[in-house]
Amino acid sequence: MSLLVIGSLAFDDIETPFGRSDSTLGGSSTYIALSASYFTDPIRMVGVVGSDFGKEHFDLLHAKNIDTKGIQKVESGKTFRWAGRYHYDMNTRDTLDTQLNVFAEFDPHVPAQYRDSKYVCLGNIDPELQLKVLDQISNPELVVCDTMNFWIEGKPEELKKVLARVDVFIVNDSEARLLSGDPNLVKSARIIREMGPKTLIIKKGEHGALLFTDSGIFAAPAFPLESIFDPTGAGDTFAGGFIGHLARCGSTSEAEMRKAVLYGSAMASFCVEQFGPYRYNDLDLLEVDDRYQSFLELSRIEA
Amino acid sequence: MSLLVIGSLAFDDIETPFGRSDSTLGGSSTYIALSASYFTDPIRMVGVVGSDFGKEHFDLLHAKNIDTKGIQKVESGKTFRWAGRYHYDMNTRDTLDTQLNVFAEFDPHVPAQYRDSKYVCLGNIDPELQLKVLDQISNPELVVCDTMNFWIEGKPEELKKVLARVDVFIVNDSEARLLSGDPNLVKSARIIREMGPKTLIIKKGEHGALLFTDSGIFAAPAFPLESIFDPTGAGDTFAGGFIGHLARCGSTSEAEMRKAVLYGSAMASFCVEQFGPYRYNDLDLLEVDDRYQSFLELSRIEA
Repeated sequence: MSLLVIGSLAFDDIETPFGRSDSTLGGSSTYIALSASYFTDPIRMVGVVGSDFGKEHFDLLHAKNIDTKGIQKVESGKTFRWAGRYHYDMNTRDTLDTQLNVFAEFDPHVPAQYRDSKYVCLGNIDPELQLKVLDQISNPELVVCDTMNFWIEGKPEELKKVLARVDVFIVNDSEARLLSGDPNLVKSARIIREMGPKTLIIKKGEHGALLFTDSGIFAAPAFPLESIFDPTGAGDTFAGGFIGHLARCGSTSEAEMRKAVLYGSAMASFCVEQFGPYRYNDLDLLEVDDRYQSFLELSRIEA
Repeated sequence: MSLLVIGSLAFDDIETPFGRSDSTLGGSSTYIALSASYFTDPIRMVGVVGSDFGKEHFDLLHAKNIDTKGIQKVESGKTFRWAGRYHYDMNTRDTLDTQLNVFAEFDPHVPAQYRDSKYVCLGNIDPELQLKVLDQISNPELVVCDTMNFWIEGKPEELKKVLARVDVFIVNDSEARLLSGDPNLVKSARIIREMGPKTLIIKKGEHGALLFTDSGIFAAPAFPLESIFDPTGAGDTFAGGFIGHLARCGSTSEAEMRKAVLYGSAMASFCVEQFGPYRYNDLDLLEVDDRYQSFLELSRIEA
């Protein structure tokens, strides 16, 4: 099934307790598309980069058969940049610097041949841009949306307009509490689902994820990793694996949603093993399926 | 199968954001025995109380068919008392007061008819007392041990002697990090299992529990509750449900261990619904099995 991905393309300066990595390819749509590429085809990206986004960066996307014709290249500008430092526990981070660059003037244009996309993933960007993209899609079957605390606090009204139009909303636990105003996640989920999305996923980092649907709650464990090298992009690759699996099946049933959460978790567990998105350079589908099986084994109970 | 339970019997003064409850029946062995009583018989308690521990308190235990002949009553003394206040998030608490009372001079004596007990649960008390009890059991099939940060910091050498002799050790995540000296739970588990216990359970509160065995890792979710009224005793009732299920099956296989973690989690999820151990007054086995099924449903994936 066709999948449209919108979000940022970026260069990141990342510091973790284990080292640092400068000008690393990043951005929400980069991670989403790379992760989803293991599951479905075609994947279409809409976004913007500057003159510093070179052939080697496009090659990394093309190697996964990702269609980049929807990425505008602004030769007079620079690609979006983010700098952050992770704390010792790797669950929290400080943003050290953000340079919007070409994103400041970005007016997303969805190419005509992309407008029939059936699956749409709205990666973490300004909700106004998410809305502009949604307006250009003719008849999507499933819209998945990610966001972050910056937009919950900064553009709550625009975000609520987006939420009224999405099927699946993905946030982390602190963002769910912030958006709902309730510290209890079960109550938070009810409040957020009343804003529009029938399905809500609350990510809890090393504690896994919760899926809330009309049928009830699914609790997915996280993969117990001995070392987390760089959490950047983990949430985006979760979203990519999640929507990628659903696009592959062409189904949004409860049963496939649950599996999709585990595939998303599997993709995120690879992401954190290296700085940037480079773990996917040599990752193959057999390894993905192996890790999915490990996730099943983690919570397996004999009948 | 016969189950011997050692630990504290206490009166607790509990404050939570939702109210307070004074002189509430408590203590690690009280909670363990009440929880285990849903699964196995006979349950034998070894402990000490003072003159203030009345017929109404014994009646609560006898109503669940618990054998209290191993509980010494010191008429000249008072029962152990604990006072604590839970924070807004209900995950952390401050101890406001501890009065050892009759526990200060307690020298545990295991009655002759208890010494053939096959399953032994060492609830949270001074590891020196746990050792004295172990010395009096002839040939246990399974020894489960709980502890807390107070003993990890205060009596590490005595605790390590206990650990060398137990089969299953239960701690929460912060205690695992404290005992191992490693912030990563997978590494912590390896370090702690090298101290003796082949099986380790790390409880993560609202994030569930991890079971580490020779066969691998099992991740159990927590029950997503809308309201937690009083967390006191949750960890003890987890231990009681865990060992209770194993004693009921007479098995310590990996498959039954996994189910036992879910039964323990189910028993803990009831415990927090009321102040003190009183939720068990009217709880029946059908409700326990219903909640166990809910736990299965929480992580169910269709083949």
